[in-house]
Amino acid sequence: MGHTVIFQPSGRRGTVEDGVNLLEAARQLGVDIESPCGGARVCGKCKVRVEEGDFEKFGIISKASNLSALMEEEREELEKGEVEKNYRLACCTSVQGDVLIFVPEESRGAQQVILETGRERDISVDPIVKNYYIEMVPATLDDQTDDFMRMKGVLAEKYDLHNVDYIDYFVTVNLPETIRAADWKVTVSIWDDKEIVKVSPGLVEDPWGVAIDVGSTTVAGYLCNLRTGESTVKKSMMNPQITYGEDVLSRITYSMMNDDGLEKMSSAMIEGINNLIKGMAEEAGLSVEDIVDLTLVGNTAMHHLLLNIDPKYVGRAPFAPAFKCSVDFKARDLGIKMNKASYVHWLPIEAGFVGADNVAVLIAEEPYNQDGMMLVIDIGTNGEIVFGNREKLFSTSCATGPALEGAQIRFGMRAAPGAIEWVKIDPETKEPKFKIIGEEDWFKEGDEPLAKGICGSGIIDVIAEMFKAGVIDKTGRFNKKLDTPRIRHGEDGKMEYILSYARETSIGKDITVTQGDVRAIQLAKSALYCGAEYLMEKRGVSKPDQIVLAGAFGSYINKESAMVMGMVPNCNLDNVNAVGNAAGDGAKLALVSKAKRAEAQKMALDVEFIETATEPDFQERFANAMAFPHRKHEFPSIQHILDKIPQK
Amino acid sequence: MGHTVIFQPSGRRGTVEDGVNLLEAARQLGVDIESPCGGARVCGKCKVRVEEGDFEKFGIISKASNLSALMEEEREELEKGEVEKNYRLACCTSVQGDVLIFVPEESRGAQQVILETGRERDISVDPIVKNYYIEMVPATLDDQTDDFMRMKGVLAEKYDLHNVDYIDYFVTVNLPETIRAADWKVTVSIWDDKEIVKVSPGLVEDPWGVAIDVGSTTVAGYLCNLRTGESTVKKSMMNPQITYGEDVLSRITYSMMNDDGLEKMSSAMIEGINNLIKGMAEEAGLSVEDIVDLTLVGNTAMHHLLLNIDPKYVGRAPFAPAFKCSVDFKARDLGIKMNKASYVHWLPIEAGFVGADNVAVLIAEEPYNQDGMMLVIDIGTNGEIVFGNREKLFSTSCATGPALEGAQIRFGMRAAPGAIEWVKIDPETKEPKFKIIGEEDWFKEGDEPLAKGICGSGIIDVIAEMFKAGVIDKTGRFNKKLDTPRIRHGEDGKMEYILSYARETSIGKDITVTQGDVRAIQLAKSALYCGAEYLMEKRGVSKPDQIVLAGAFGSYINKESAMVMGMVPNCNLDNVNAVGNAAGDGAKLALVSKAKRAEAQKMALDVEFIETATEPDFQERFANAMAFPHRKHEFPSIQHILDKIPQK
Repeated sequence: MGHTVIFQPSGRRGTVEDGVNLLEAARQLGVDIESPCGGARVCGKCKVRVEEGDFEKFGIISKASNLSALMEEEREELEKGEVEKNYRLACCTSVQGDVLIFVPEESRGAQQVILETGRERDISVDPIVKNYYIEMVPATLDDQTDDFMRMKGVLAEKYDLHNVDYIDYFVTVNLPETIRAADWKVTVSIWDDKEIVKVSPGLVEDPWGVAIDVGSTTVAGYLCNLRTGESTVKKSMMNPQITYGEDVLSRITYSMMNDDGLEKMSSAMIEGINNLIKGMAEEAGLSVEDIVDLTLVGNTAMHHLLLNIDPKYVGRAPFAPAFKCSVDFKARDLGIKMNKASYVHWLPIEAGFVGADNVAVLIAEEPYNQDGMMLVIDIGTNGEIVFGNREKLFSTSCATGPALEGAQIRFGMRAAPGAIEWVKIDPETKEPKFKIIGEEDWFKEGDEPLAKGICGSGIIDVIAEMFKAGVIDKTGRFNKKLDTPRIRHGEDGKMEYILSYARETSIGKDITVTQGDVRAIQLAKSALYCGAEYLMEKRGVSKPDQIVLAGAFGSYINKESAMVMGMVPNCNLDNVNAVGNAAGDGAKLALVSKAKRAEAQKMALDVEFIETATEPDFQERFANAMAFPHRKHEFPSIQHILDKIPQK
Repeated sequence: MGHTVIFQPSGRRGTVEDGVNLLEAARQLGVDIESPCGGARVCGKCKVRVEEGDFEKFGIISKASNLSALMEEEREELEKGEVEKNYRLACCTSVQGDVLIFVPEESRGAQQVILETGRERDISVDPIVKNYYIEMVPATLDDQTDDFMRMKGVLAEKYDLHNVDYIDYFVTVNLPETIRAADWKVTVSIWDDKEIVKVSPGLVEDPWGVAIDVGSTTVAGYLCNLRTGESTVKKSMMNPQITYGEDVLSRITYSMMNDDGLEKMSSAMIEGINNLIKGMAEEAGLSVEDIVDLTLVGNTAMHHLLLNIDPKYVGRAPFAPAFKCSVDFKARDLGIKMNKASYVHWLPIEAGFVGADNVAVLIAEEPYNQDGMMLVIDIGTNGEIVFGNREKLFSTSCATGPALEGAQIRFGMRAAPGAIEWVKIDPETKEPKFKIIGEEDWFKEGDEPLAKGICGSGIIDVIAEMFKAGVIDKTGRFNKKLDTPRIRHGEDGKMEYILSYARETSIGKDITVTQGDVRAIQLAKSALYCGAEYLMEKRGVSKPDQIVLAGAFGSYINKESAMVMGMVPNCNLDNVNAVGNAAGDGAKLALVSKAKRAEAQKMALDVEFIETATEPDFQERFANAMAFPHRKHEFPSIQHILDKIPQK
């Protein structure tokens, strides 16, 4: 005898056999109800509500009495008043007649991930490491089955897992004791439905993972709940290798000039990552052993330097890396302190100079799912550019230097409290306004003097504003004729613009933008512009339909400023989006979704890398692109802004 | 255009295309020719001979001139005179007409393994780790393929390996440097055709592996060439855990009574194994990094104690182990010093008290391939018995104690130089003869006095001979009425038999067999006999068709002695074989054959374990079996021997 069961809000319906419990009914009808304990009646997460009434359009009369009687376990788990409102635990409730069931938001399986960039992604949360709660029948003289096989049996029966054929050595070491001390009730953390990487006593609902974007300058980490996909803690640090060299090439050189150089840089990085993980775990009230998965992204040099692989050959022609494919190595082999038996996943590398960070940007922005032509620019110490659409993608890499991240700039700094992140300059008075990270409003006279320096987004803003206000001309030179106290000769005899007076800062000196800073930014933006231009040509397209500006700035860059300084090609400003650290987003997506990892591996092979710096006319183009937009017809989208720029 | 090619001695023939080289022709026709370098013309191992003449019955005229011209590489590799005898290297020689090729013994792929026990096994040498020599095209700016992918490409093309998807982390660390320093010519050691575990510069023909039988008392190791299947070095040592307890149960107890007991015993074992491996490698002129595979067998307690898994629950009811299936753990995780990236393979466990050593005996003796009923008795500190045939096998375990290995015997010792291994006693004079390990002949007056003690086979011999000569009676008691200087009261007041006078020994005292020794052997043999009896009953059979006596005695035991003392049930003596360390044989077979590993896993699950010690009539049967054979009708096979025993 069957009964009709309807689940709302999904509307899925079907017939289930008499006596089937609601959790099983949901599974049969493809409805995802949260159930960390797998229906063992201990977690209380599978709360649902029976809707009573005559649902004529579905042809059923739903009654609370069409379900089995309330169990003791339900009384314990349900909150005050919920029983009266017909709330039940799906695992405790069997179907004895037609019912319409409402699954509240909090009981639904996670299907959405909120990215670092604030956007939401409809992806199924399906991490490679999942927790399974099992209760075993204890061993007896008549059933001397070994512990591993006993676990496998319950996993197969209860969760339909039939390929759990491996168990990490270090899990076996404490296995008999763990199982028996927990009275044969344990939570098994399984990697890829194949290998047991942790066995914890009792019910552990949430497996935790960490995603790390290993930038040359900044390392950003995200602690995520692998069950819900939520990212609860975020931390970043300076890349500790920076002591050995500001950019990638100087670090590779350091490793070549010093016998223990590679070892030192690798250890420094691992130690840094261990601190980062520990800090995040502590903030969430976890121990590092609770972290059962880790994804890493970074450029090819960071990849080799972290893995203690000699980066020498990555730094010189023909630039072939040791390996490009994604890999899963045991955390312990890398010296990373988290659950000892767990894996660390490095996303794949695309090409010698287009690393796993760019692959992460790809899976976050999905240009391969676009009909229109998308230009993705990831701004870091190296700039990586991808252009194309679902038919074909090209990528390239540009030596931008770290200027756009705030490094190699007189008062440049990491995006951190005290950094000036946004700037406006009055075109008449040339007086600036600025906003500091950590403060709600724009800085005004009388506020606490907190400014310490300028971060990447601030640098881009201030240079664009200086150009718009006529402080610098199209070649980047200061306009010496301006009559404003904001412009002066610096100690090096060259011109500089005073963004913040000493009294407004916490460092006791004027924060200025120098001629050298302007040049550094011009070099960087020109490299990006040329790279984009080559890829568009290669694809036979004169203009992107949309532009994505990504980068670990901490704060989003002003897309108008980016275009005003000619960092990106012309595009309708409405279709330009600054998304922040998309590489971090990609690392997180790979952490919570197996499908995204597969996508990354596929895309790393599909994207075609173009070496642009060796093009014969590169030098000429690069020199031309140094100037700020002045051939106005090239930038119709910002014509109205360019028109207002005062002429000398 | 095709040519007929015939390979002798296999007689395989077929048509190959013009210009195909002989190595490829052999592959096409299913003929196995040695070729460690994979046809790269550097190893000289694929030597073959062209037979000239009119082979009418095959319809071909074979001529040396039907092959391509001799190459420079062949002149270098072929020995003096071989060119004249039409020897060629198969990889250098292409077919241009009909030929009959003879493949000499040394060029044929290995198909036979010589076991420790002296017997030969026709198994295909197909180890899980194999070496593949490859020559890569160096990376260029036009081909920036990464190193791993480049290796995979050549492996797929040259060796048809398409699933080499993994590379161990520690192999990647030095990969770029290794490959380039070796001018892109390397040997890749691959585990299970899936994972790269070593990359060595240049051509390395032979991968090496070690098989270890971890006995409670003795640990025996075998170094094997994984290409040829040959075992070149053998070494054994006392189990270093013996300091913590003579037998399994006392070691388990030690681990329970001492906080660091398990850790200490595990470390002692690993250290011992590391020394054993190092010693064998050095003897063969290898480094431990050359060892790319290791198989381990041992009883369940040894398994847990070596792996640092708490053995507490293995020692008490219900005796469920942590896991029974075979496992592959990385050597480095266990602290075993060999090639860092390689795996250690533990053969599967059958049941709590029937360990991987017994599974090894199974795959060495193959009772599951017999039509007749086979009884396999593996004598160690624990005795394991298997009985049955291809239809069904039962197993059990008997607490024999280490007496049959020479331990717990007044003058017992390990099978080593100086141990008395064989004994005869004159039934009239009661005077003994004995043979010492390391000496060619039986000991005689005037020989160098080398005897130090008695090993397992000697103990079995001397007790049986004492019974046959009437020195002890059917109950094991000394016959006090005998008038011989060989029998005296020992220091403990009990009777003893002088096997060797002090002047004949290197220890300066008489080597005697005491009443206590006789009792210890009686307990052990009774346990084995009862175990066999239960299994035969279970299988509904009164008598085995053949008996295999296995054990790490070092020397083979005398099967007649074993039956005379009633250690084994009645069986035609021609069908009783003492085979030595069959567990070691099994470990070696698993080392050189993937198929044998699979067989082990299957058999471990198929054999049904019977707990005999809990049978209600066990005590009674055990007591009965203590006596030496006297109910003569029970042992018709040795009736003629029993008839001659002097009656008191």
